[in-house]
Amino acid sequence: MLTTDTLIATPGPTEIPHRVLLALARRPTNPDLDPDFFKRYDEVRVMLARMLGTSKGNVVVWVGEAMSGLEAAVANLTINGNKVAVLSNGVFGDAFADLVASYGGVPIIHKVDYGKVLDPDKVKAFLRSEAREAELVTMVHCETPSGTLNNLKDIAAVVKSEGKLLIVDVVSSMGGTEVNVSWGVDVVIGGSQKVLNLPSGLTILVVSDEAWERMEKVSYRGFYLNIRLWRDVVERMEFPYTHSEPLINGLLESLRMIEEEGLSNVYARHRAISRGVVNAVEVMGLRLVPESEEYSSPTVTAFYTPDGISEAKVREGAFKYGVLIAGSWGPLKGRVLRIGHMGYTASLNMMTNAVVALAKALNDAGYRVKVSDAVEAFLNGVGL
Amino acid sequence: MLTTDTLIATPGPTEIPHRVLLALARRPTNPDLDPDFFKRYDEVRVMLARMLGTSKGNVVVWVGEAMSGLEAAVANLTINGNKVAVLSNGVFGDAFADLVASYGGVPIIHKVDYGKVLDPDKVKAFLRSEAREAELVTMVHCETPSGTLNNLKDIAAVVKSEGKLLIVDVVSSMGGTEVNVSWGVDVVIGGSQKVLNLPSGLTILVVSDEAWERMEKVSYRGFYLNIRLWRDVVERMEFPYTHSEPLINGLLESLRMIEEEGLSNVYARHRAISRGVVNAVEVMGLRLVPESEEYSSPTVTAFYTPDGISEAKVREGAFKYGVLIAGSWGPLKGRVLRIGHMGYTASLNMMTNAVVALAKALNDAGYRVKVSDAVEAFLNGVGL
Repeated sequence: MLTTDTLIATPGPTEIPHRVLLALARRPTNPDLDPDFFKRYDEVRVMLARMLGTSKGNVVVWVGEAMSGLEAAVANLTINGNKVAVLSNGVFGDAFADLVASYGGVPIIHKVDYGKVLDPDKVKAFLRSEAREAELVTMVHCETPSGTLNNLKDIAAVVKSEGKLLIVDVVSSMGGTEVNVSWGVDVVIGGSQKVLNLPSGLTILVVSDEAWERMEKVSYRGFYLNIRLWRDVVERMEFPYTHSEPLINGLLESLRMIEEEGLSNVYARHRAISRGVVNAVEVMGLRLVPESEEYSSPTVTAFYTPDGISEAKVREGAFKYGVLIAGSWGPLKGRVLRIGHMGYTASLNMMTNAVVALAKALNDAGYRVKVSDAVEAFLNGVGL
Repeated sequence: MLTTDTLIATPGPTEIPHRVLLALARRPTNPDLDPDFFKRYDEVRVMLARMLGTSKGNVVVWVGEAMSGLEAAVANLTINGNKVAVLSNGVFGDAFADLVASYGGVPIIHKVDYGKVLDPDKVKAFLRSEAREAELVTMVHCETPSGTLNNLKDIAAVVKSEGKLLIVDVVSSMGGTEVNVSWGVDVVIGGSQKVLNLPSGLTILVVSDEAWERMEKVSYRGFYLNIRLWRDVVERMEFPYTHSEPLINGLLESLRMIEEEGLSNVYARHRAISRGVVNAVEVMGLRLVPESEEYSSPTVTAFYTPDGISEAKVREGAFKYGVLIAGSWGPLKGRVLRIGHMGYTASLNMMTNAVVALAKALNDAGYRVKVSDAVEAFLNGVGL
């Protein structure tokens, strides 16, 4: 092996920047008792609110992997027996239907092929027909398993115009591409271990006034996933349980890095790096999972393994060259490879490594590509 | 201020040892994809199993503050409409009743004063009378708000002899005093931020064969708190969601430190340090919350603030001397102060500081004590 360390080029968890790692190792305080912790928690909320186009009072950050937030959104907003419109073009979109059913809702699914994205006009027609009784709509912004990005802005406008509440999973998009609550989103759910380059363990929720109101009506009775318990925690200086100080310190550092770079620069970097990776993949003759490049998420590139080549073998090969890339999930498992370029890893240096390792691993697995062509295509795509 | 850094002498979160802080900052991998992570997760289970007298297959460690485990135990084991025996001598004992009710169970409460501990004979009588229909029993081993430690061994024997399943909160005792599942415990719930000296964010569950069986019958339908989804995760090499690598690395380091010292040495150290703190508190004329010293937990000392002295003022005073001590919760809030001596902080050096800071702060608040007497009493209690 010619490499001395490995690169995590998966669609989360990602590499963690040194600044964030050091923040995790900062000497602790007691987050229940030290007023300074509440200040840091509030600073995190201010920066998240700025990023997501909301006010800090609507931002909740709690301890739990992002799944806890997805389930909580459904648990706190679903009324027993009510229909819920589930928009889905992927694995996580589908999963919302299970969550809805387990909390007594009746999921009405608008299903689109995994390689496609949601079409605002078709969504409108669906919300006016099969799902007209639904008060609640769920969707996923970026589907990591298939690498697609839905047009959240236009779909939110449609959902709003139909007078329904929208829950959106932005776990793998927020921070890498624009997510703006003022588009008409009622609950967004994000996580720490994707674009924000932290370990898993923090869930970020933004809740609209309408969603807060509906929660009072639903009166979900569980404790850990009860979003209502998090309202005014800073004012009361009391969390429902002990918060994670290192993760809040890490998130503060991560958000500072984003603000230092500038949000629009961060988004432009993601788009450029993404174009580079897509270009390299296409020059190698590999087929993207998204049917069109414009459906591809700026945070992850998903593509089919060449016929007759083992997906696992390519991953293992790339790992030998020092780069951890991912397979996929659900119906795409075993046929699809994925490269994450999220936050810190949406980087010229890291993605050059990822492209080289992928090209070398494909060759080793018996699929011939010219490594230098892949690198050149990557650089061209990036705009260099 | 004459101090350059502060000491967290609260009953969790605690100080974090330097070795654990560095483990938190270890460069990451992708826990879903790197087989090495599963090995580390399994090593954690082996060491926890050794500590708790069980086998690793019954140990689950998931991402969430310990409250998630307390709720999960109830959610996964409560049958709608069934009576559940809730044994309580404190705030967390009482809280189990709310959890039971929110999952459709009917809590039948055996309530003991906060300064007392559960009496095995009275528990037996209760389980044979009011609670004879209950199949499930809940209790708390160490009640941090009142600083009491229940006799888990004897009570577990009683619960077993009555043929019921026992759920025990050991969040603030495990690692500081013996907890042995073979005494007859069906579910224990522990957390990362107490004696194990990690940040909050990991919940430790041990599940008996009988409890696994009952869970199949209950078939709890939620996802995040669904314990069944964690069975065989290592064999399947698939977690229900992305695990927290830094916290598992930290836990590994913490457990190694415990094994290096030796479990019986660790327990003896807690007992000795606890005796020292209790001695110092009593020499200062302060009254313990536990009615008898033998009820006092080796991990935390709780005592009433002297009449006419503000609890907040004493805490603020101690913080000025560089030591963060805690107030209390529930009915004890505002009248009780607490010093945690958990894991790393069950230490001669740290508790000397805590005793000095407390004594100085009491004097500053107008309650006269001789600081040197308190220190001497502490050392005598420790056995030095």
